[in-house]
Amino acid sequence: MVLSGIHPIAEALRAGTPLERILIAKGAGGPRIQEVVDLARKASVPVRFEPRAALERLSGTSAHQGVVAVGAARKYADLDSVIASELLVVLDGVEDPHNLGAIIRTAHAAGAAAVIIPERRAASLTDVVAKAAAGALEHLPVVRVTNINRTLEELKDRGFWIYGLDERGTQAHDATEYAARSVVVLGGEGKGLHEQVRKHCDALLRIPMTGQISSLNVSVAAGVVLFEWRRRRAAKA
Amino acid sequence: MVLSGIHPIAEALRAGTPLERILIAKGAGGPRIQEVVDLARKASVPVRFEPRAALERLSGTSAHQGVVAVGAARKYADLDSVIASELLVVLDGVEDPHNLGAIIRTAHAAGAAAVIIPERRAASLTDVVAKAAAGALEHLPVVRVTNINRTLEELKDRGFWIYGLDERGTQAHDATEYAARSVVVLGGEGKGLHEQVRKHCDALLRIPMTGQISSLNVSVAAGVVLFEWRRRRAAKA
Repeated sequence: MVLSGIHPIAEALRAGTPLERILIAKGAGGPRIQEVVDLARKASVPVRFEPRAALERLSGTSAHQGVVAVGAARKYADLDSVIASELLVVLDGVEDPHNLGAIIRTAHAAGAAAVIIPERRAASLTDVVAKAAAGALEHLPVVRVTNINRTLEELKDRGFWIYGLDERGTQAHDATEYAARSVVVLGGEGKGLHEQVRKHCDALLRIPMTGQISSLNVSVAAGVVLFEWRRRRAAKA
Repeated sequence: MVLSGIHPIAEALRAGTPLERILIAKGAGGPRIQEVVDLARKASVPVRFEPRAALERLSGTSAHQGVVAVGAARKYADLDSVIASELLVVLDGVEDPHNLGAIIRTAHAAGAAAVIIPERRAASLTDVVAKAAAGALEHLPVVRVTNINRTLEELKDRGFWIYGLDERGTQAHDATEYAARSVVVLGGEGKGLHEQVRKHCDALLRIPMTGQISSLNVSVAAGVVLFEWRRRRAAKA
């Protein structure tokens, strides 16, 4: 779904319609455009400034008044709404929508309270993701943040312990006493964690493996770690 | 790769070239065709009898002498060659090549000796599977069998204990003392185990879950169960 024009987009934002992002034409301005930008910020919808040609291509019209919005399959949640929980999953650049969907499904089944994804260079909540999540997207909040590192700092301040999964991790995932409030961070396909994100982790875990290969598919790795977390938590309860 | 003609296909079979399947034209016969059929059976390559039109469509020629063969990305292994092992994975109708690839990768990393798949109504070893397996297909044998139920009986006779993963399973996967020789059986996407296959299992396991959904993606489920098997095995060693 693509919306164009100041009024329809301002109304969609006020009504809480799930929006993926908003494009503002470079050079566009004035109080009504500013109002759309403010509403978007409040609703955590990313705003980008693009050439008019990009807005026309996307909306199929030149009557967009300098604003075009792309609809999302689902609404994103607020970080504050999921912070009172025992387990959060942070994805540092998972790009494949099938993987994102499978991780949302897995995180929900393992007992995580939310999945947190970055705004850029990562899969977002498209219909393909919703399908791969097999219904879990109806139940599990997904939070989208501008800066993963800042979010990890905020989560640390709120008392979470940050576990990054990394091939070079020093601690086995199944020999770890997980903290009462845990964040599990998983890197993108084939790339793993960004260096900065790795530095923000309190512990780097690895999954002990047999054989000739060094990593698992990221959604499989998520399942292995999150269900080990769940097993240990159930054993304590 | 598609081969056509009696001599090229007989030679490919003798040379051990990986073949996906062989089509024989309905009505074709004679000792040389019979020789191809015998070589195919010996090499565990499935043979199907199809109308001549199907062979012509596939090979792009009418000069196929009644035999057309479809190449495989990798060679299949023999059941006998993998039977001296502690862990085998049997897939009862996994159809998505990405899932098959991810399971091969996961099985190898968890320490399984082979993945066993059925000939029909299931993904086979295509290039997409090889890519999703991320190199594991070079190391882990994949066995293709005509009849999963017969294979499970044979594995039982050889001393394996058969664990089927099933939503209706009565035993938690993480509360199971796995036998020294274990087979883990996983069902197809959205369908689970066939009734007959379920009956051939010694135990039906389930993954205890939180939340509103009842199952995981099959490759994620494979990871959760196989790495729990690996964790228990490592703890004993």
